[in-house]
Amino acid sequence: MTADRGSMVPSTRQCAGTGLLDGPGGGPARPVVALGERARAVLRPLPAGGVRLGPAGFWASRVAVNAETSLAAGYEQLHASGVLENLRLAAGTAQGPYHGKLPFLDTDVFKWLEAVSWHLQTSASAADALAGQADEVIALVAAAQDPDGYLNSYVTVVRDGERWADLPSGHELYCAGHLIQAGVAHRRATGLGTLFDVARRFADLLVDEFGEGGRRVGYCGHPEVETALVELYRETGERAYLDLAARFVDLRGSGLLGDRPFGRRYFQDLLPVRDTRALHGHAVRALYLSAGVADLYLETGESGLVELLREQWDDLLRGKMYVTGGTGSRHRDEALGDAFELPSDRAYTETCAAIAVMQWAWRMQLATGDVTYADVFERVLYNGFLAGTALDGEHFFYVNPLQVRPESTLGPQGRQRWFSCACCPPNVMRTMASLTHYFATYDAEGLQIHQYAPSSIRAELPARVGVDIQTGYPFDGLVRVEIPQECAGEWTVSLRIPDWARSEARVRLDGAPIEVAGQDYVRVRRDWSGGEVIELELPLHPRLTVADPRVDDVRGCVAIERGPLVYCAEQVDQDSDLDRLTLRGTASDGDPVEIGGLGIPTVAVAASRAESEAAPAWPYRRLGDGTPDADGASATVTAIPYFAWANRDYGAMRVWLPHGEAH
Amino acid sequence: MTADRGSMVPSTRQCAGTGLLDGPGGGPARPVVALGERARAVLRPLPAGGVRLGPAGFWASRVAVNAETSLAAGYEQLHASGVLENLRLAAGTAQGPYHGKLPFLDTDVFKWLEAVSWHLQTSASAADALAGQADEVIALVAAAQDPDGYLNSYVTVVRDGERWADLPSGHELYCAGHLIQAGVAHRRATGLGTLFDVARRFADLLVDEFGEGGRRVGYCGHPEVETALVELYRETGERAYLDLAARFVDLRGSGLLGDRPFGRRYFQDLLPVRDTRALHGHAVRALYLSAGVADLYLETGESGLVELLREQWDDLLRGKMYVTGGTGSRHRDEALGDAFELPSDRAYTETCAAIAVMQWAWRMQLATGDVTYADVFERVLYNGFLAGTALDGEHFFYVNPLQVRPESTLGPQGRQRWFSCACCPPNVMRTMASLTHYFATYDAEGLQIHQYAPSSIRAELPARVGVDIQTGYPFDGLVRVEIPQECAGEWTVSLRIPDWARSEARVRLDGAPIEVAGQDYVRVRRDWSGGEVIELELPLHPRLTVADPRVDDVRGCVAIERGPLVYCAEQVDQDSDLDRLTLRGTASDGDPVEIGGLGIPTVAVAASRAESEAAPAWPYRRLGDGTPDADGASATVTAIPYFAWANRDYGAMRVWLPHGEAH
Repeated sequence: MTADRGSMVPSTRQCAGTGLLDGPGGGPARPVVALGERARAVLRPLPAGGVRLGPAGFWASRVAVNAETSLAAGYEQLHASGVLENLRLAAGTAQGPYHGKLPFLDTDVFKWLEAVSWHLQTSASAADALAGQADEVIALVAAAQDPDGYLNSYVTVVRDGERWADLPSGHELYCAGHLIQAGVAHRRATGLGTLFDVARRFADLLVDEFGEGGRRVGYCGHPEVETALVELYRETGERAYLDLAARFVDLRGSGLLGDRPFGRRYFQDLLPVRDTRALHGHAVRALYLSAGVADLYLETGESGLVELLREQWDDLLRGKMYVTGGTGSRHRDEALGDAFELPSDRAYTETCAAIAVMQWAWRMQLATGDVTYADVFERVLYNGFLAGTALDGEHFFYVNPLQVRPESTLGPQGRQRWFSCACCPPNVMRTMASLTHYFATYDAEGLQIHQYAPSSIRAELPARVGVDIQTGYPFDGLVRVEIPQECAGEWTVSLRIPDWARSEARVRLDGAPIEVAGQDYVRVRRDWSGGEVIELELPLHPRLTVADPRVDDVRGCVAIERGPLVYCAEQVDQDSDLDRLTLRGTASDGDPVEIGGLGIPTVAVAASRAESEAAPAWPYRRLGDGTPDADGASATVTAIPYFAWANRDYGAMRVWLPHGEAH
Repeated sequence: MTADRGSMVPSTRQCAGTGLLDGPGGGPARPVVALGERARAVLRPLPAGGVRLGPAGFWASRVAVNAETSLAAGYEQLHASGVLENLRLAAGTAQGPYHGKLPFLDTDVFKWLEAVSWHLQTSASAADALAGQADEVIALVAAAQDPDGYLNSYVTVVRDGERWADLPSGHELYCAGHLIQAGVAHRRATGLGTLFDVARRFADLLVDEFGEGGRRVGYCGHPEVETALVELYRETGERAYLDLAARFVDLRGSGLLGDRPFGRRYFQDLLPVRDTRALHGHAVRALYLSAGVADLYLETGESGLVELLREQWDDLLRGKMYVTGGTGSRHRDEALGDAFELPSDRAYTETCAAIAVMQWAWRMQLATGDVTYADVFERVLYNGFLAGTALDGEHFFYVNPLQVRPESTLGPQGRQRWFSCACCPPNVMRTMASLTHYFATYDAEGLQIHQYAPSSIRAELPARVGVDIQTGYPFDGLVRVEIPQECAGEWTVSLRIPDWARSEARVRLDGAPIEVAGQDYVRVRRDWSGGEVIELELPLHPRLTVADPRVDDVRGCVAIERGPLVYCAEQVDQDSDLDRLTLRGTASDGDPVEIGGLGIPTVAVAASRAESEAAPAWPYRRLGDGTPDADGASATVTAIPYFAWANRDYGAMRVWLPHGEAH
């Protein structure tokens, strides 16, 4: 593999982070419309700096906690867990036993580096401590690389350098993928090649090993490298990386991974990708793969591919997604369940699976422009994803149940600082650090705003377009969108009306109502003078939601939603035992509570409390036999947003609550 | 360890199987009232041959299938799976790789030998092929034993003889326990010491290693050896075995097993046994341990122990047992769930856990005489246990869900001939072969009949007592109990009235009604002349059962029960898609069906069928929004006994069915 790959790395750091050019810079997934003849991005991501959060606001605060607390905590954990020392062992600059038992611990380092990179891309001060820490860690990564480009501390140290010996479970290509993503992020953020060159050398080795005519035929048990290779193609223009990603996708499903205990479905090896009409098996693997296939489509425009992905997506939504946007209902093999297999208490709903849905949704949104992907992105963002991190930014959930029973023995009891399998925390960090990249897109007509936060958004069509947004979203439903003077001219601003608001939203342009009934995006085209204000009024009253009868676990229950937020009832907010309460009425706004420094709106619902406290000796009785507990004393259930649970006492919690009128 | 252990083995085979002496012979758990000063068996098991099934009848047919098909199939699988070859490898009489990856595969052999032993105890012809096969297998076992008594082919072959290196996961004492149980069964059945002496030599080594003052302090990650050692004490009178069982129980909970991935609860090592008021963790381990503790109580009468076990039992029944009697709701760690965590689709409910409940229930029944243990034994026997085996006797379930969703991807799809972890099939075989031991007990006053089958039951008090039973149970509710001439004299016959029949059962003695309202056992004491007939009439009409509201998974649903049988609806019997049906009415007897050669009563319930077939694009909607599917066309749901499911097409199945009146 000796194709010409002249460095496209900018010679100085200064061009990075300027934000408004479609050259270096940009976010985690940036289709290269100019390069691929058949490329199919309907919408395009903004370049770096295209969305600037603030002043203040919900997401500015979350992103700041990530930058100020999570990334520093992550750095400490990289040291404490030994994963940096593992790199020294691989480099031969330290001696001792390998730390940890999993073969993919290097990715903790790579994902943290990616997170710091995105942070540096938008940070006010690129000279903060994290920049220095990143350089230090990058030096360790570079030193651990073999002369031919190979890099994997576990294989080097634990497996005596025996490479590619366990494609089903060894995660070597998965690790390579995270290194590549970190390298691309670091270059996009800083313009430097220190990490990027390391990653690219490994990628070149992968092309030699696994590319067509290479020494090996195979693919990884854990998809991830596909998205990474496509992104490296986007960053370099080197077709070989795209071809290798395509090859991994083409080969998959041929059964090369064998039939390990969880079966071929576990790692998406039962059927060829193009015959896979519904996702099964390990949730994160399945979703990362579909994100990778979407990336392929975005670059190749392959006929039929986007229809296939739509079919997979529709199947996912039809019966394999929780109301929180979480996916993956099985603990045993971390797998997507069968349709409607959505238990609340045993929901697995890994934080990484939420991130994977967001990655896939984003690529589908670029490919199709359809609102469903932004709608679901929002649902996951505010619920399944956000609940994975404590409001303090340094405690995390791996598993995100929708119900915790009283006196549950399910561990761990509450969020943890780190995990022996710590895939989630640094995955959260990189997602949070790059989050603004997902908030808006542009096309030849103008700008599309998908997620609402106080922010300044700019793009060049090449004429400059943009908006300044003020809003108290997601707690308040008024979104004020102003056209700045610098963006005068004729173009279209498109504002997403979330699915839950579509029948009730109101929009005004400089006070005059605009008809939007049933629209998914309100599209306003004007020859803007600047200073115009569009007000989007989203109805944030609490809603009670019931599930399809096939979702057995929540039959007879309701979930409470308010705007994009799914609510839950925690024991700490109730006067009675949570498992004795049955909702009876409608929901209304309650008094706000302060949790983790945030003032948070609650929702109150009238309820009745079962009289007797004790469970019967045998929990089954004849239909019609006396149920004295059915109607008890009046009570009120107080609910808080699901993302804010487990920030106080850790106790019983329910997203789905029994309701007398839900059948 | 050199205590005098002179052989108590009878010199000939002829005294075995005669049945009516409390000497050699007897079943799987036989408290030694005469030996332990403080022994506490309220009821005593009958000796071998005390219950003789037939002519014909439900259980005679099941036991015959076990003897004629299952045991032969098991012998074939012992060969095919390589576990017999493993013994040759350990003996040094064969070369090659070890077969299988699990460290407890020897127990497949031991459990099969135990099963054949119980079969030979009651078999009409002790000279059948199985006797010869057992002798052949016993020779392989004996040859694999080390000179000092140690026996474990996995350790010898795979671990290069490194013993006791992995008490948490190595299963060495678990394997020893099954060898001991097989040895005791073989001696009780045949009077021979060929297997018994092998087992006892290993047990003596265990006493040397793990007994007080021995070389090691520890206990097994998988309880089992406790029941086995107590039984060996019962068989030999040697106190050292009882002491060792007690020592394992005393030490447990001290954390010696460490904190493996599933945590200390997994193998009941979080708390000392005497502080364990509720069972948690791996279901089979927890239940085997409690059976062992019950055995200890039966021999020592230790103050407080039976109250502890009652508390554990009550907790199990209150929220950790399925309506089928199955236990263990978690796939991931094969664990009991939290209270009320009882999902139907993801029920694990391992067949071995059903067996473990039966073992524990039996010992509790002996210890207390309380009817709850016989009631639950019956529930497990006819449902959770019996469903684990196909009616053909050669296909098995490891996992026994209460619901299979349409197009489920959960494998395996239907019962299997054997498993890579084949604990269940030979466990079924040994239980079925010894089943009659659990049907009746005696005490100084007379005879107690706990389970009903056509049978002749005899015991000596020392005066001979007994009954002859005719019944079509469990399909028919009339149980005819005749006192034979040879059992004339004054004594009490006690007939269990099952919990579900307690308010409606009728009893007649020679046609004259006996008042039984609310009684758990109808106790009839007479100076019998012989020829008297007691008729027990149990109400077998179908019942609809609802669950406590805390059992979230089945809210709004009913289960159908008929006598001791829990029913289920299989797709193959329905005219409509099972997931579109909602029950609306009461249940009545339907037309019988033939399944697996049995004529089986069905139950029919009126239902409505949802009109639209397609699931919505998103399975959540606002409460009160139109639900056009709620009331559809009239339909009928046909249900069959749960034990008979998956004997025809393997498809959707539900034990719990939505019902319009169940809230």
